Amino acid sequence: MPLSGIRVVDLTRVLAGPFCSMLLADMGAEVIKIEIPGEGDTVRRAGVIRDGISWYFAAFNRNKRSLTLNLRHEEGREVLAKLIANSEVLVENFRPGVLARMGFDETRLKALNPGLVYGNITGFGETGPYRDRPSFDFIAQAMSGLMSVTGEKDGLPFRAGPPIADLLAGLYGALGICAALLAREKSGRGEKVGANLLSSTISILGFFAANYFATGEAPERTGNDHAIVAPYGLFRTKDGAVALAPAQEATYQRLLDALQLPQLREDPDFRTNALRLKNREKINRIVGARLLMETSDYWIARLNAANVPCGQVKNLAEVFADPQVEDQEMAIEADHPGHGKVRMLGFPLKFRDRPCRVRLPAPDLGGDTEAVLEEIGYSAPEIARLKEKGIV
Amino acid sequence: MPLSGIRVVDLTRVLAGPFCSMLLADMGAEVIKIEIPGEGDTVRRAGVIRDGISWYFAAFNRNKRSLTLNLRHEEGREVLAKLIANSEVLVENFRPGVLARMGFDETRLKALNPGLVYGNITGFGETGPYRDRPSFDFIAQAMSGLMSVTGEKDGLPFRAGPPIADLLAGLYGALGICAALLAREKSGRGEKVGANLLSSTISILGFFAANYFATGEAPERTGNDHAIVAPYGLFRTKDGAVALAPAQEATYQRLLDALQLPQLREDPDFRTNALRLKNREKINRIVGARLLMETSDYWIARLNAANVPCGQVKNLAEVFADPQVEDQEMAIEADHPGHGKVRMLGFPLKFRDRPCRVRLPAPDLGGDTEAVLEEIGYSAPEIARLKEKGIV
Repeated sequence: MPLSGIRVVDLTRVLAGPFCSMLLADMGAEVIKIEIPGEGDTVRRAGVIRDGISWYFAAFNRNKRSLTLNLRHEEGREVLAKLIANSEVLVENFRPGVLARMGFDETRLKALNPGLVYGNITGFGETGPYRDRPSFDFIAQAMSGLMSVTGEKDGLPFRAGPPIADLLAGLYGALGICAALLAREKSGRGEKVGANLLSSTISILGFFAANYFATGEAPERTGNDHAIVAPYGLFRTKDGAVALAPAQEATYQRLLDALQLPQLREDPDFRTNALRLKNREKINRIVGARLLMETSDYWIARLNAANVPCGQVKNLAEVFADPQVEDQEMAIEADHPGHGKVRMLGFPLKFRDRPCRVRLPAPDLGGDTEAVLEEIGYSAPEIARLKEKGIV
Repeated sequence: MPLSGIRVVDLTRVLAGPFCSMLLADMGAEVIKIEIPGEGDTVRRAGVIRDGISWYFAAFNRNKRSLTLNLRHEEGREVLAKLIANSEVLVENFRPGVLARMGFDETRLKALNPGLVYGNITGFGETGPYRDRPSFDFIAQAMSGLMSVTGEKDGLPFRAGPPIADLLAGLYGALGICAALLAREKSGRGEKVGANLLSSTISILGFFAANYFATGEAPERTGNDHAIVAPYGLFRTKDGAVALAPAQEATYQRLLDALQLPQLREDPDFRTNALRLKNREKINRIVGARLLMETSDYWIARLNAANVPCGQVKNLAEVFADPQVEDQEMAIEADHPGHGKVRMLGFPLKFRDRPCRVRLPAPDLGGDTEAVLEEIGYSAPEIARLKEKGIV
């Protein structure tokens, strides 16, 4: 697999960090999840528990091994040092400074392992006035500007339902770690790379940010309408609603044919996109009235045949019953010994020769403690002693 | 830089693909953007044009070189073949089959360059019933289930304002390419890796997907409220609104102190999160009344001091005036000869030793054609001939 042979010491908890290490694990890295003895990642107890396992935890921790370790104890920190010395990557999502206060500042990390790639994920970054503030996905969505452009102009700003600030930070973290590993192949030297929730979410403002920088005017919310294209948006049909995205002039022309509304071509109010934008309500009303006359399925077939981007707003039951989503294997099942089969999201990255797969179910708390300690050179009596003292 | 020495042949247009190649370029890859002679990427004409350049194009195409190439012409395809043979990565976001029909199927690509990493970004994936459908960010947001959980229960489903389906697909593409490059370091063999808008967006359903798989019940929209935590959400203050995310019991307890509402601890309606969820309206009313009594700044300071995650909903003007965003350099300026300085988003990935930076401004159309052709072995007379024939 792409990341075979890469060992990752994973000190992350909850979501952004575990998503980052899951991405690495899905591509073949050996991820060793460090958890507090007797307690473990709080996500083990979050979401729906079925057959004795949180399906939320199972999804985000597949392909990982679990080692319990008491990092408040000096001997626990010695085990961590040995693990770091024997790994390629360290990833953590503590608040800034916490790892250093445990005795693992950058000087120590370099001394332990000059080739170490050290990834860290924070809420706001490691410097700046908010570095020590608690963060959270919702807060990053609010402070990044994302919410200011989500929802209707006269309505409330909304967060995107999924925790995209967390997940973007995790994705950037995985990308940065892979890039640093590539550099290490050439130089032999390690690197440190940080991602944070706030900057990651700001990074997706793309078009909005470019226009704000160019004009100095903050964009407004436009609901499901496009800021500068009309018609565009969500339209009711006989039995539901359809999202329409005819963003180019040529697509608009094909839309008129598919809707059998060629007369709009002659209408001086609609001759250019600029005019349609000015008369958005009027053209939306005409297009909307036409779409109301048939079912969603009818329009999806007809509009796709005319090469007009369109789709239904699907709920999760509809998403996972969709033949395209099935074809792409975006829902998979994994055996979890003692907990039956767990259904979870599939792999959005499709490698031709070395595909992502579930090699390991999400681990029981500390399920790999002994095996991992043996691999880094601890003897059976030493392991027994560490267990007895509650260090592992 | 992390990706120095990696040459990328970039056949992408518009957003998802150019974002992918921008991420690679920002980390040091040499990206050669192939554009249609005399026309170029449509984004060159999109968004606000200032001093003769689209700031949207400038942002997403920084650090790239531009080579014009007519791929409808046999000689143009020969140039492409030579480029592919001299590069490490090829990335494209045509619809499935288009590149093969140009003469570059996988067999040919392997013959040209056995070590080639080939990344492709599509709307729906390369197989399945919708493979040939036109896609678009908004459509992927609708069909992925993301919109079904964004907005209020009784209101419309909303798309997230930013084009996150496009950008997630680009991010996954960059991650897959870096992972494949790592595998190539060991094996010498290339790989093909695909990302698509629909699967990438489905991949962020995390918690919602896990609970849906476990229960069979599709989640409903909950606006800015948390599905299973109360109080949580957006609350009005004397002069604005504040997002509050006290997701853990301990955080809720600290929130009560910060709000000076210790009496809620004794209220039997609010003793556990389950009870507060049941009595969400009532507790939201009490918390909301308290927050209304002071300004947003007051609460942000007070709640952060109590270690309660909170933040204001900021518009883009407020975001880029925020001292934390300034500290993280999320708005930067780059010189664009002939077009003055262009302000654009900064780099969310923070490498300690090999930081991302703007080495090159976004290229003029075909601005690097001659230099690139020389580098792959074309002589000056050959280049002149190709130019004259309109091939480059």
